[in-house]
Amino acid sequence: MNNFSFQAGTNYVFGKDKHKKIGELVKPYASKILLVYGGGSIKRNGIYDDVVASLKANNIEFVELSGIQANPRYEKVQEGIALLRKENFGLILAVGGGSVIDTSKAIALATKTDDVWNFYTNGGEPETAIPVATILTIPAAGSEVSPDSVITYQGRKLGYSTEKFRPVVSVVNPDIFMTLPKNQIANGVTDMMSHIFERYFTQTEHTDLIDSLCEATLKTIMRNATLLMKAPKNYDAWAEVSLGGSFAHNGFLGCGRKQDWGCHGMEHELSAQDEKVAHGAGLAVLTPNWMRYVYKENPRMFFQFATNVMDIKPERDMDKTINAGIDKLQQFFVSIGQPTTLRELGFNENSPLEEMAKKGAGDGFLGNFKPLYWQDVLAIYKASL
Amino acid sequence: MNNFSFQAGTNYVFGKDKHKKIGELVKPYASKILLVYGGGSIKRNGIYDDVVASLKANNIEFVELSGIQANPRYEKVQEGIALLRKENFGLILAVGGGSVIDTSKAIALATKTDDVWNFYTNGGEPETAIPVATILTIPAAGSEVSPDSVITYQGRKLGYSTEKFRPVVSVVNPDIFMTLPKNQIANGVTDMMSHIFERYFTQTEHTDLIDSLCEATLKTIMRNATLLMKAPKNYDAWAEVSLGGSFAHNGFLGCGRKQDWGCHGMEHELSAQDEKVAHGAGLAVLTPNWMRYVYKENPRMFFQFATNVMDIKPERDMDKTINAGIDKLQQFFVSIGQPTTLRELGFNENSPLEEMAKKGAGDGFLGNFKPLYWQDVLAIYKASL
Repeated sequence: MNNFSFQAGTNYVFGKDKHKKIGELVKPYASKILLVYGGGSIKRNGIYDDVVASLKANNIEFVELSGIQANPRYEKVQEGIALLRKENFGLILAVGGGSVIDTSKAIALATKTDDVWNFYTNGGEPETAIPVATILTIPAAGSEVSPDSVITYQGRKLGYSTEKFRPVVSVVNPDIFMTLPKNQIANGVTDMMSHIFERYFTQTEHTDLIDSLCEATLKTIMRNATLLMKAPKNYDAWAEVSLGGSFAHNGFLGCGRKQDWGCHGMEHELSAQDEKVAHGAGLAVLTPNWMRYVYKENPRMFFQFATNVMDIKPERDMDKTINAGIDKLQQFFVSIGQPTTLRELGFNENSPLEEMAKKGAGDGFLGNFKPLYWQDVLAIYKASL
Repeated sequence: MNNFSFQAGTNYVFGKDKHKKIGELVKPYASKILLVYGGGSIKRNGIYDDVVASLKANNIEFVELSGIQANPRYEKVQEGIALLRKENFGLILAVGGGSVIDTSKAIALATKTDDVWNFYTNGGEPETAIPVATILTIPAAGSEVSPDSVITYQGRKLGYSTEKFRPVVSVVNPDIFMTLPKNQIANGVTDMMSHIFERYFTQTEHTDLIDSLCEATLKTIMRNATLLMKAPKNYDAWAEVSLGGSFAHNGFLGCGRKQDWGCHGMEHELSAQDEKVAHGAGLAVLTPNWMRYVYKENPRMFFQFATNVMDIKPERDMDKTINAGIDKLQQFFVSIGQPTTLRELGFNENSPLEEMAKKGAGDGFLGNFKPLYWQDVLAIYKASL
């Protein structure tokens, strides 16, 4: 196990009706807030009215920024910053999924500068940031508990992380997820599983506890995702999946180990190339092919995955066991409606795969389990066609 | 799953040499601190010198309070409060195990009152408390990440919890644990396992994720405890056990479920009766007998324990499977040197078991899985003789 530090102080408020308490929860931070959300779904399902009622009951003024879309764009961040220049917000409340939360985090950086894109391109640590609170409407990105944000601008989809992004309050109410369409359930489940895979597959030795916590979380998410595909209004299954999705990405499952993040890096190039490509769908295609490409770097880890997560009976032939595990994972993705090929996502031999691979890997490499230079990324893209 | 809120913001700093950074870690909180520790072991193993060097290097003044013993007493808390009245400490640094940390937490309550014992007897919420930081020297109590403290006074061993007790910084360095005697390893391991049992055995339905995280943590602790019994200087095994001990008690494993805490309540009466009784040893005796006494209230949960944690092959005869699981747990305790009977701890038919049972259960009951009235507690004490 490697040395590590871990601190995740989000006040995580879970369960039925909890979003109706948002006014009380954010009141210690602010009397005027920026309320950020996506399209009209929270107006249709009543969440918006509940939030407004709770804010008003607690005498919290708010200004709205809406219309955030999937693969959130910097232009919306700039709109938020313009609002910030007019008013003094003590907190930004994101009511939405990862895109809305990530946009809110980006806006939160604009206390001393308008150019927050600079953090995404050049890094550095902000002196201050506005506190962010969230009411989650799509369990997937884990942004409700994470220090991460991903924003798209000028054809680049870039991530930036700072502990100042960690939300101070996050409300997760499984009732809110019951009307999500099946493709969003599938994409969310795939994304949270990927957040665990990116941490689980490591070359670090002696990682027993976190390994087994990763395995337990993956199995719980898969079992309950299968229930949701049959009954999307199953509260208990949503409770397990959404709690699992948060635990997948608050960082604890990465403690003491070198993490990978190759699949996320490769997928970001797919969505950057065509923003209609859902992050989860891209991951579902790439992950099994990444596994087949890299497993020989440390077969023990993939043997453990096959037997402990995918319940493959261990055989003396290690490769056979490993490949059975990867195949079974791919079958799981298919069972929840995910594609298996990039072709299904609109890519083919004429797509600029080499250009995408070079943009993704840059002069260096993606991932860690096996460092993926652009040639490796291209090989995985081609194997995924 | 029940509704819940969870917030655990301790800056958890893990790994080799990390205690040498304590000055930097506490500097944001204070320029003068109270340094609390137990006997001379930290002077013998060099930890004291490392801590003092780091405090001095960061210009942090400190006053010392030492001599804290197991089953910590209120008299030492009062000594600490007296020091507090003379100096203005911005933080209390506990270098020790649960007793030292729990004493420090109790002292931390004395910002507005000298009578902190009142919180232990009558509850209530303190307006303020001094921040506590820890360097752990015995992984067991989980107090390095918990909102809990247990203090003994006038023949009563009472717990009090407030989020203000949650340490702001905790350093866990497995190298520090290598010289612990085997009985302390065994008692620590038993205590951390009990912290999970008290949460795991529940009547709450649909608790998949947390169930499986409990099971994973229990198995990791047991497997690595067995390694430590053979090789107490195995860094990796200590890393797993100590991280598991913290995760066992930061509260996450209790989220969304009704918890029990009957065994802890029953054990506190043993140590209150005879302070030579180690908390872990008492728990090792009581836990299997508690299990046998209560499992029929919800056999499914104990069947799950037997098969998922103790690796018992499930048989059609549910009771047989369950009892095999409980027996195997007891064998594990024996394998790490724990007793199986209260007699080995100095109790017998002439001990005031009825009085102890009545003191433990009061006018109500202990636990939740099956409410334990004093007659039940007495029956478990007698079955444990």
